[in-house]
Amino acid sequence: MTNDIPTPTATPPDILRCASMEIVVTDLARSREFYVDVLGLVVTEEDENVIYLRTFEEFIHHNLVLRQGPVAAAAAFAFRVRAPEDVDLAEAYYRELGCRTERRGDGFVKGVGDSVRVTDPLGFPYEFFHKVEHVERLAWRYDLYGPGALVRLDHFNQVTPDVPRGRKYLEDLGFRVTEDIRDADGVTYAAWLRRKGTVHDTALTGGDGPRMHHIAFATHEKHNIIAICDKLGARRRSDCIERGPGRHGVSNAFYLYLRDPDGHRVEIYTQDYYTGDPDNPVVTWDVHDNQRRDWWGNPVVASWYTEASLVLDLDGDPQPVVAREAPSELAVTVGADGFSYTRAGDTAQGFTHGSPL
Amino acid sequence: MTNDIPTPTATPPDILRCASMEIVVTDLARSREFYVDVLGLVVTEEDENVIYLRTFEEFIHHNLVLRQGPVAAAAAFAFRVRAPEDVDLAEAYYRELGCRTERRGDGFVKGVGDSVRVTDPLGFPYEFFHKVEHVERLAWRYDLYGPGALVRLDHFNQVTPDVPRGRKYLEDLGFRVTEDIRDADGVTYAAWLRRKGTVHDTALTGGDGPRMHHIAFATHEKHNIIAICDKLGARRRSDCIERGPGRHGVSNAFYLYLRDPDGHRVEIYTQDYYTGDPDNPVVTWDVHDNQRRDWWGNPVVASWYTEASLVLDLDGDPQPVVAREAPSELAVTVGADGFSYTRAGDTAQGFTHGSPL
Amino acid sequence: MTNDIPTPTATPPDILRCASMEIVVTDLARSREFYVDVLGLVVTEEDENVIYLRTFEEFIHHNLVLRQGPVAAAAAFAFRVRAPEDVDLAEAYYRELGCRTERRGDGFVKGVGDSVRVTDPLGFPYEFFHKVEHVERLAWRYDLYGPGALVRLDHFNQVTPDVPRGRKYLEDLGFRVTEDIRDADGVTYAAWLRRKGTVHDTALTGGDGPRMHHIAFATHEKHNIIAICDKLGARRRSDCIERGPGRHGVSNAFYLYLRDPDGHRVEIYTQDYYTGDPDNPVVTWDVHDNQRRDWWGNPVVASWYTEASLVLDLDGDPQPVVAREAPSELAVTVGADGFSYTRAGDTAQGFTHGSPL
Amino acid sequence: MTNDIPTPTATPPDILRCASMEIVVTDLARSREFYVDVLGLVVTEEDENVIYLRTFEEFIHHNLVLRQGPVAAAAAFAFRVRAPEDVDLAEAYYRELGCRTERRGDGFVKGVGDSVRVTDPLGFPYEFFHKVEHVERLAWRYDLYGPGALVRLDHFNQVTPDVPRGRKYLEDLGFRVTEDIRDADGVTYAAWLRRKGTVHDTALTGGDGPRMHHIAFATHEKHNIIAICDKLGARRRSDCIERGPGRHGVSNAFYLYLRDPDGHRVEIYTQDYYTGDPDNPVVTWDVHDNQRRDWWGNPVVASWYTEASLVLDLDGDPQPVVAREAPSELAVTVGADGFSYTRAGDTAQGFTHGSPL
Repeated sequence: MTNDIPTPTATPPDILRCASMEIVVTDLARSREFYVDVLGLVVTEEDENVIYLRTFEEFIHHNLVLRQGPVAAAAAFAFRVRAPEDVDLAEAYYRELGCRTERRGDGFVKGVGDSVRVTDPLGFPYEFFHKVEHVERLAWRYDLYGPGALVRLDHFNQVTPDVPRGRKYLEDLGFRVTEDIRDADGVTYAAWLRRKGTVHDTALTGGDGPRMHHIAFATHEKHNIIAICDKLGARRRSDCIERGPGRHGVSNAFYLYLRDPDGHRVEIYTQDYYTGDPDNPVVTWDVHDNQRRDWWGNPVVASWYTEASLVLDLDGDPQPVVAREAPSELAVTVGADGFSYTRAGDTAQGFTHGSPL
Repeated sequence: MTNDIPTPTATPPDILRCASMEIVVTDLARSREFYVDVLGLVVTEEDENVIYLRTFEEFIHHNLVLRQGPVAAAAAFAFRVRAPEDVDLAEAYYRELGCRTERRGDGFVKGVGDSVRVTDPLGFPYEFFHKVEHVERLAWRYDLYGPGALVRLDHFNQVTPDVPRGRKYLEDLGFRVTEDIRDADGVTYAAWLRRKGTVHDTALTGGDGPRMHHIAFATHEKHNIIAICDKLGARRRSDCIERGPGRHGVSNAFYLYLRDPDGHRVEIYTQDYYTGDPDNPVVTWDVHDNQRRDWWGNPVVASWYTEASLVLDLDGDPQPVVAREAPSELAVTVGADGFSYTRAGDTAQGFTHGSPL
Repeated sequence: MTNDIPTPTATPPDILRCASMEIVVTDLARSREFYVDVLGLVVTEEDENVIYLRTFEEFIHHNLVLRQGPVAAAAAFAFRVRAPEDVDLAEAYYRELGCRTERRGDGFVKGVGDSVRVTDPLGFPYEFFHKVEHVERLAWRYDLYGPGALVRLDHFNQVTPDVPRGRKYLEDLGFRVTEDIRDADGVTYAAWLRRKGTVHDTALTGGDGPRMHHIAFATHEKHNIIAICDKLGARRRSDCIERGPGRHGVSNAFYLYLRDPDGHRVEIYTQDYYTGDPDNPVVTWDVHDNQRRDWWGNPVVASWYTEASLVLDLDGDPQPVVAREAPSELAVTVGADGFSYTRAGDTAQGFTHGSPL
Repeated sequence: MTNDIPTPTATPPDILRCASMEIVVTDLARSREFYVDVLGLVVTEEDENVIYLRTFEEFIHHNLVLRQGPVAAAAAFAFRVRAPEDVDLAEAYYRELGCRTERRGDGFVKGVGDSVRVTDPLGFPYEFFHKVEHVERLAWRYDLYGPGALVRLDHFNQVTPDVPRGRKYLEDLGFRVTEDIRDADGVTYAAWLRRKGTVHDTALTGGDGPRMHHIAFATHEKHNIIAICDKLGARRRSDCIERGPGRHGVSNAFYLYLRDPDGHRVEIYTQDYYTGDPDNPVVTWDVHDNQRRDWWGNPVVASWYTEASLVLDLDGDPQPVVAREAPSELAVTVGADGFSYTRAGDTAQGFTHGSPL
């Protein structure tokens, strides 16, 4: 489709994991009500313009930054790297790619030290940092847990027009693909990529981009996710529920998708599988397998395919959105009523894995 | 719509609970695969024409009878009564109502003694029995439990054109309403009625009838219901899942609706509340409250409103189906895409209960 | 052992269910911290001397009354009866038994109307009422649920020296036995008796009495009970945990026993089975079956057998405690280390049920 | 205490994770009943002398090897390394340590290629391999899941007399400590060490050694562990349950300890936390904190401290067991009745973590 992103000669940084996201929200009080009062994320610190939130098992300063601003958007996808020197590596790596970079010795946000932010070749604002303030890991503070306690940041999901192009770039950066969705014509609709030993730290979803599809937090058990739905119902906020709960085919996790007051999508997620071996089998799903996105075959609402958040450049302006040229997953799988259904005969198991001994 | 059903002078039988349903299936082997291999119901006994199934906590002979036949239909909604004499009372009660009745001292099915079957004023085949063969209550047999073990028959659900007419008849018979759905114009769309101390032993859903909407089995926990979905996905039978899983508004239970190979609808259900006090508060839901049928506001698929099983008369012939004249719940609440959505502004809590001290 | 309690000629009241207990606590603030802050019971109303608490699915005014007083004790085991007239029946019934009774048209506690309290033939303070103030049933208020939400009052448990004597008295009063523990010599160690369709509304445990063994609240799922333990650990109050969590043999429920600041025992309980049929099979357990009290064979701590709360007479004075003469369950089943273990060879399933068709 | 193990100059192998254990059992049929029929591990292949078992989410050939033999013992603790060359590194590393090593190009067991086995400086039989046969990852095969499905091998636990000596050796080998238990006098009682991003791949428990304390398998949720207990009760095998279920303080996981027919200890484990960052905070527990081993303060049975499995040398002969000289955790924390209790005043939270920004 488009030209490949060249593989730099520079050594990529050693990325540990997705660590936090900064999002711009247009009404901080409403967003606080959603993330703190409803979802129960823990406030590490806050002022009138920004709120730093973390999960119950986290020991770094935050996993989510809410910043008051004029246009709802994702301002940074932040990854933690193994050592302070990896921030230098990241800066050099993206400079070789011709990307704009910005370095701040004292960090772009509170609680984080020396960091670099880049506009990556796909147009996303990526951040890399190592130094971070440690805070209390609340894992044992069951006196503070609610019924739907969020315990970890699990992953990001990014919308990009050309998934294979993005995949190559992320593999060069050190990510490994765990699962993907394709069709018989060779079109790739989505790919899941990981650093830590889970199914993903980020995923690429084919669509008009660059846009932020969602940020995902993990709970311990499935009933925790159900409790979040029940609480939303009790608060008469069930309109926040966009899709699910359900079982994913891809990742095998139990999931729920919510929309925050600005429409930013949040996934609640639990129980995918260990992927840390270098030869971890890649699972490829057929785009026509109607159990790929929901293992129970429940329809995917059209908005889940079409809507996503803008992302910002390093000046804080929204990135222009480029249309996907390849067939969209929505178009190839969705019925006239706007819901994604099975096709007749879509009964093959639809995934494969190798056995390379 | 139609004339009221008169209140008999005869004493109604003392009904304990819904106890079993007999359904006609067109391919007994396929139905066995669904109810035994997938759902894990326990076979009490079987031959080439009929299979007797029960749940793990049941001590009577069966909760479901599958009978091979030419036309898929519900042949009997069977209720257990408190004493042998209550069968006599039932027979006299329905005779006074002018209903056709049939009495069999040795029962209509195996494992059950003296019984009466009637075609009730709504056109449904009701059965009443007391004497029954006791079998092992498998409650402690965790060596036999699967991940989605069904532990109790919970309730029936019947489609009838005129819900208030049916409600009065069932109240005369000794049932008590626990919840209902109405609109501001006084139209009743559905009512839930109980004998045992749960939300219902049977419910009336407004629609073309008489038809059998579903039979519901209980599990212990919500994850048991999720396990059934996961298993259906693994068997590539996710097309059996019609609606859910989700949380009901009405009944507050967690639910799933499946369709068996003949299209008979089966609900899996867990965790409603105690209703055994005579002044148990009745909960009335507004038909425009989009959380009434699913507490999370998830859309109700149109088939759930429109499709249901035929019921048989005492000769084994299907009852003619009479159209509902009052507005249908589907029509008043469903969008053009065939899914039931909220209306703008449907945010009132929408239920009420009295406080009669 | 002692003389039987005669069967009155009077009609017994129609008891619906165990409804509430009043207990005297010696430090109301500490008890409030335990029942409200830790266990999450809902405060219906309170003043400096008394706190009225209820569960999430309750619609009557309270299930537990905490009253400040000089000596920790149980002041009333309150049962709700079907109709106002049943209070008259109760009064007459106990008068025929020669018991002291006290009637109050406006109730002994807030929220309850016309009531009678009696000192029953076993020495327990029983209360019967029908009229009660309705309050909001919080079943749908998931915004208020904690991870260990208590949803129903399930049962009482009473210690009495002569279980068969007490059993006959309660059967005359209209209770039905669902399970019991015996030995081959005919000694009965405990019996479970119900009105509502669960395993019990109250149980008799053989021991020095009259004393109150515990009051039990139900949760929806097993993880709710685990959450209570986790929270107690986080509050560094794990010393409140006396026994469990575990699976009962008797009742098949999942359980936990706590001790409140005065030593009153509270059980958290979930998932027993339906018992509402008149021929519900009685399960008899051998006292030497080490899975009877804990299905996993885990030892029962000695305090669970020996310690219990005093009960009050109608003047508010503690009832004298009479020693059990029959062998104690502790003595026949417990090792030298103070824990209850299996005997070699205790591997028979050890329970039976009839099949009376 | 004893002399330190020197740090080799050789590069240690890059260990991915604990991957499998080989144990000798004295009655293969009885062990198969335990591991396959009760615990539901999946048989990859088997013959009359050996059974290869795996968990539901595993894609390598096996996680547990049962081998028929004359003396119950652990024959190999096998770790997977990142690349084929790491097997060479492992061999050189242990040769420099003066350990006996044995290399087999075709593996010591089926399904595994080039491997080296060593008797390590602590006397344990460690194995390192990379090449392995891929088999079907059954993660999506919910049609095969039982209620207590084991989804991953989580960790090993080893008994050794001198924990600091073993800890230094394992840290040199590339492991990182996540938690430990100490007293104010500087005695270390246990340490948890990880490679993959969980609390441990192996732990060192202070005691007479070298012995194998347990092997641990993970489930998805806590109810899965309860289901295993319930099933053991139903099979009248509750004597297999040694300790738990409960919540660990250390690791924060929910746990259960079983003993197999030879007395080999198996832990079932779920829900610890992510530890993959290099500065993951180490949690140190006071040995007198009675919530360290069980967060609910439930007593630890003495056998859990004293009993463990022999381990074999490379000739298949049991290693001699050396007594621990430092105080034993049992002795410093256990009451006269053989159960581990709290000491009066043990209410401090008792763990610490740093904040090294």
